[in-house]
Amino acid sequence: MSAVAPGGAIGILGGGQLGRMLAIAAAQLGLDAHIYTDEPDSPAARVSAKTVVADYHDHAALAAFAHGVDAVTTEFENVPADTAQALIDAGAIVRPNARALAIAQDRLLEKDFFNAQGIATAPYAAVDAEGDLAKALETAGAPAILKTRTLGYDGKGQARIASAADARAAYAALGRAPCILEGMCGFAMEFSIVAARGEDGAFAAYAPTANTHRDGILWRSIAPAPIAQALCAQATDATRALMAALDYVGVLAIEFFLMPDGALLANEMAPRVHNSGHWTIEGARTSQFEQHIRAVSGWPLGPPESLGAAEMLNLIGDDVSQWRDHVGSPGAHVHFYGKREARAGRKMGHVTWVGG
Amino acid sequence: MSAVAPGGAIGILGGGQLGRMLAIAAAQLGLDAHIYTDEPDSPAARVSAKTVVADYHDHAALAAFAHGVDAVTTEFENVPADTAQALIDAGAIVRPNARALAIAQDRLLEKDFFNAQGIATAPYAAVDAEGDLAKALETAGAPAILKTRTLGYDGKGQARIASAADARAAYAALGRAPCILEGMCGFAMEFSIVAARGEDGAFAAYAPTANTHRDGILWRSIAPAPIAQALCAQATDATRALMAALDYVGVLAIEFFLMPDGALLANEMAPRVHNSGHWTIEGARTSQFEQHIRAVSGWPLGPPESLGAAEMLNLIGDDVSQWRDHVGSPGAHVHFYGKREARAGRKMGHVTWVGG
Repeated sequence: MSAVAPGGAIGILGGGQLGRMLAIAAAQLGLDAHIYTDEPDSPAARVSAKTVVADYHDHAALAAFAHGVDAVTTEFENVPADTAQALIDAGAIVRPNARALAIAQDRLLEKDFFNAQGIATAPYAAVDAEGDLAKALETAGAPAILKTRTLGYDGKGQARIASAADARAAYAALGRAPCILEGMCGFAMEFSIVAARGEDGAFAAYAPTANTHRDGILWRSIAPAPIAQALCAQATDATRALMAALDYVGVLAIEFFLMPDGALLANEMAPRVHNSGHWTIEGARTSQFEQHIRAVSGWPLGPPESLGAAEMLNLIGDDVSQWRDHVGSPGAHVHFYGKREARAGRKMGHVTWVGG
Repeated sequence: MSAVAPGGAIGILGGGQLGRMLAIAAAQLGLDAHIYTDEPDSPAARVSAKTVVADYHDHAALAAFAHGVDAVTTEFENVPADTAQALIDAGAIVRPNARALAIAQDRLLEKDFFNAQGIATAPYAAVDAEGDLAKALETAGAPAILKTRTLGYDGKGQARIASAADARAAYAALGRAPCILEGMCGFAMEFSIVAARGEDGAFAAYAPTANTHRDGILWRSIAPAPIAQALCAQATDATRALMAALDYVGVLAIEFFLMPDGALLANEMAPRVHNSGHWTIEGARTSQFEQHIRAVSGWPLGPPESLGAAEMLNLIGDDVSQWRDHVGSPGAHVHFYGKREARAGRKMGHVTWVGG
């Protein structure tokens, strides 16, 4: 496609904070954001030129949405296959492409794809029926984590298991949905590579980012992660190869485990801007949000270099009640997402510090 | 007032690029922007939670607007007095205050105020009738510029005159509106001080910015302006004193002339964010837009320090047709305002470079 000119429109599936920050980045580049979401009064809608509130399976609404924009992207990986297909059938350019979305939303396809690309993972096995559990436990080892293949996020849709009895109970609790059993690995550090690939095949990676979780939710990121340069190069090269293999356009994040013996295991990928890349808004020459919009629009990628060491802290649930402290702290870059209610576990905002 | 909490709403009068960039800054801070404009499909409306399109003298619409927001600000100085009063009557907190707006929108009051604050200006005289022209020319000297006292911007509403005959023709051409005749000064440099004052009286100034105009429209700014530190301190101190005298809350810009003999003359002030402060988006720790929203919201000001030497280039009219060059230039931060038509003299976007 030819590059989207300023004044054009980018369609975004999803109305959460990632859609909101994408819409803001699009606005700065002179592009209208059109949001498609099933949620009324969404955070993204309140900063966008147009919003459609409809079901993700409403093919007529999707077709109309597609006709009003120059390209479509998403803030979440769990885009139903028929949603992507309806947009494509209506003539939309969908970035990232449907294959990347399909792989990233299924933990089994994702792990298979990592391995096919020569990127190691923890041991895992598919669980399609209760009868698979025993053999899966042998493959993955105990303790392990049983996860639904699709639709899990932020620690939801998963259970830690230590024995065959645990496994059966967990499988029942997960509704006997298609699952994957993953061996738990006692990693030394979790870090992510957030990178972009342009329509022209150009690749730009941000500094590796070390991540700490709290209750299964990303809590704190620092960039650059304190890892050896060779390891960073290994992870970045793997990300580059994976994105090329997918003919990927846009920003993608891969979470890696650094093992105590120095081995690198891929955990999962997100075919979108990622929470661990929020520090790039102030900490890099081009933010991940601008970078994604540039790629989706067929523009050249911007330079990803860091402007300094960065730290990002998520404000989760009640954390946001301390907003005055953050707002009054010189050098703290505060971001609030405009969510109406501070429910437990809900990402309400984040704060970034960038050093000299 | 108590500080506006994230989730609150800021009302902005005006739908242009300044309103758009204010709305984006508000969104990043978790605040909804409500735009009040008489222009349909305005640049600011397309990034804001809510927009009212109505006349600035529609007091009922203004009252309803005031009731939906926590504070009201403006992107332009020519807010009619009855507009501000209608908002205040409806209980709105209007920042900057009505007095600051009244002074800044009248070139005569503005110059009188500068002088009352001990800030020198070029010679000037009021022209209320044709009979005033001869004496005004004596005061201001020739050549001089005849300007309407109100509603002029970007070189509009003014005429250069060299003789009494010129003056009469220009006065007629300006519709015999109340005017001011200003002596022309052959300045060595024009620079601006963009600064903010918080509700708590805190003051934060950006690095001085040297400005170059093209056809009466700001074309290029560089920060810091190459001026001596003592001169910068003089201009900054004058700005601080003037803002305190106005009990000002928000961002304000003063344009100064540096004369060949080192004298400092104030040219005009803008009671709002200013084009010469656009470089602060990437070039300062807190952008002028965030700073203004912080002040208007009763939040502490952010640190104004520069992150490097900055250059800002306006894209005016057809300049925007070269958008591909700017978008493809590494290190160029591009901003487009989403205006539908690139008319001559229209500010369509800007590009900023920040050095190390």
